[in-house]
Amino acid sequence: MKNPLKKLRLLTPGPTPVSTDVLLSLAKEVIHHRGDEFKEILVECTELLKYIFKTENDVFILTSSGTGAMEAAVVNILNKGDRAIVLNTGAFGRRWKNILNSYGIEVKEIEYEWGDYVKLEDLENILKEDSNYQAIFCQHTETSTGVINDIKGIKEVAKKYGDIPVVVDAVSSLLGEELFMDEWELDVVVSGSQKGMMIPPGLSFIALNKKMLEKVEKSNLPKFYFSLIHAKNYFERGQTPWTPAVNTIFALKEALKIIKEYGIENLWNRYKKLAQATREGVKAIGLELFAKRPCNVVTSIKVPEGVDGTRIVKDMQNEFGVRIAGGQREYKGKIVRFAHMGYMDEMDVVMGIAGLELTLSKLGYKFEIGNGVRKVLEVFNG
Amino acid sequence: MKNPLKKLRLLTPGPTPVSTDVLLSLAKEVIHHRGDEFKEILVECTELLKYIFKTENDVFILTSSGTGAMEAAVVNILNKGDRAIVLNTGAFGRRWKNILNSYGIEVKEIEYEWGDYVKLEDLENILKEDSNYQAIFCQHTETSTGVINDIKGIKEVAKKYGDIPVVVDAVSSLLGEELFMDEWELDVVVSGSQKGMMIPPGLSFIALNKKMLEKVEKSNLPKFYFSLIHAKNYFERGQTPWTPAVNTIFALKEALKIIKEYGIENLWNRYKKLAQATREGVKAIGLELFAKRPCNVVTSIKVPEGVDGTRIVKDMQNEFGVRIAGGQREYKGKIVRFAHMGYMDEMDVVMGIAGLELTLSKLGYKFEIGNGVRKVLEVFNG
Repeated sequence: MKNPLKKLRLLTPGPTPVSTDVLLSLAKEVIHHRGDEFKEILVECTELLKYIFKTENDVFILTSSGTGAMEAAVVNILNKGDRAIVLNTGAFGRRWKNILNSYGIEVKEIEYEWGDYVKLEDLENILKEDSNYQAIFCQHTETSTGVINDIKGIKEVAKKYGDIPVVVDAVSSLLGEELFMDEWELDVVVSGSQKGMMIPPGLSFIALNKKMLEKVEKSNLPKFYFSLIHAKNYFERGQTPWTPAVNTIFALKEALKIIKEYGIENLWNRYKKLAQATREGVKAIGLELFAKRPCNVVTSIKVPEGVDGTRIVKDMQNEFGVRIAGGQREYKGKIVRFAHMGYMDEMDVVMGIAGLELTLSKLGYKFEIGNGVRKVLEVFNG
Repeated sequence: MKNPLKKLRLLTPGPTPVSTDVLLSLAKEVIHHRGDEFKEILVECTELLKYIFKTENDVFILTSSGTGAMEAAVVNILNKGDRAIVLNTGAFGRRWKNILNSYGIEVKEIEYEWGDYVKLEDLENILKEDSNYQAIFCQHTETSTGVINDIKGIKEVAKKYGDIPVVVDAVSSLLGEELFMDEWELDVVVSGSQKGMMIPPGLSFIALNKKMLEKVEKSNLPKFYFSLIHAKNYFERGQTPWTPAVNTIFALKEALKIIKEYGIENLWNRYKKLAQATREGVKAIGLELFAKRPCNVVTSIKVPEGVDGTRIVKDMQNEFGVRIAGGQREYKGKIVRFAHMGYMDEMDVVMGIAGLELTLSKLGYKFEIGNGVRKVLEVFNG
């Protein structure tokens, strides 16, 4: 039955909930993207993005999904004949490999079982034997599994072998996990709009350090829409090369101002607490975490024996309006994922665990109902 | 500290949460209120309001709060020298008396202690001695105390004594409690936009049966803005006499369509369940209900000894973004109130009780945290 009063509680790892103030800013009258008014907004957003990326480097706003920014990283810093390492911990690690393969880059893959995280010694062992790689691609947090990787450590290893550039997919981690682009000397960091940024999908971001910007000038891989030479040139006049998602940029400005006011360190602490409460709540219902090193932006949970994980996701949304994510690819039906990203708070965790408990109970999983929410309250009360 | 990421969960008995779809309809371009486009909307809304009031009578949309519709009821059906009975069970019963007094109507008040409900025998005892009253004013649900009154029974008593008109304040009850205007032969029913109607404040509604419409023609109390003769005349051309809140009426149309699709009987059941879960959750934390006959649209709870009720409301909002209502007037600090109105669902109850538990714990009230939310889940799971 279609329920016109269904209240949607979005707990998925992107898109994430958007506040009404930000949503209403989307409804503002469109302005032209070659005028002074837009220029001012674009420049303000770019400055605020630097604050978020913890960088003095250039940050570009692209009108695309996060995958577009991933592709931009590949096609702007590499050249024909380059070799790259992919640290693959899940679906998005695989995506790096696929993009690189599409551009004919030779890939050395270090692949981990889903749920596992990058071991620095594995990287080191490979580089010890052969360090002729032009870049290392990795995920800060792997959204498909809920794992966090030690990108600071990865860069430290890379520095020992000729300072190989490290390209970080921070699509899901940005704003949710500590990330210091300059301090950690990360070379390229990419992200998207619909996760920690608290706005709808449609924009992506790419930050590059000076060394990488020089590479951009010379890179000979084919590109057009994602060419950062264009992006850089146009930004000098306060513009984007192609018509950008103007209204989504209105929303970006609103969201960035809110984020700045709240403070990024406070945000990190916020999600840390939400993730902790979720993990403990889940364990109190007798379930197991999936990630071997869980991040704070998405908690992945093993579906218990005898329960169909796709039903958990479906029924939880249909019955209680609480929308979580299931597992991707081989893990479909085997894990479920709760996000702690963007415009989410304690009460979202309470609802998430409440919805999970009610749904598991209806699906016949045996446990004492209420243990999960009680544990969540204990964490927040503690 | 101002928190720009505070997520507000509105659990107050008006205003109530408004869905994004309805909010965005407010942002539509204003249209002129004397044109065909607006006429169509006004007529459609009025038809849908009849469905909600369960009446074939005329229903008028006023641009005012619910109190405006209360005043409209008084000044349009009474005459100088008339006498009225007020069945006073709380702050809104008192409001009837104040409005009537302002127009010089002699009031016979049957006043109950807050938390108590109208006893039909009290009305009957008065009418037995003297039935020379031109109207009986009452509340269907008394928002200040969370009590429901038997308006069907009140009308049955009134009929035995010369069919005295019964004027019902259904501001908070409409859509939340069963109400059959025609079947129960209610004479006047008034309501507002910001409670069960799921739209922002700014509109009120008044439905009158044929006998009352005749009275409107002759009533000699002073009035202008709330004159229903004007309202009736203008409605014949699909208009309102004064410039209405056009954009709020856009929202009204959106909300009424959703309500019609969901079905009013389903709504009644929805709030019944939400109220039941709230009551049981509250009792599981060791608290007592305030209302002697609790309604399903607002649950009032006695603040436990040693706790300041105004702090509960304040801290719950400040710490957890969950906004409930405190007690009014003499009951300030002594009771707190949770609404189950409009665009609220099971997860709102979960959050409400979670917020209450966390706040009470911080305020030093001793109980085992988690008992309330567990009980709520049990009710929804049952």
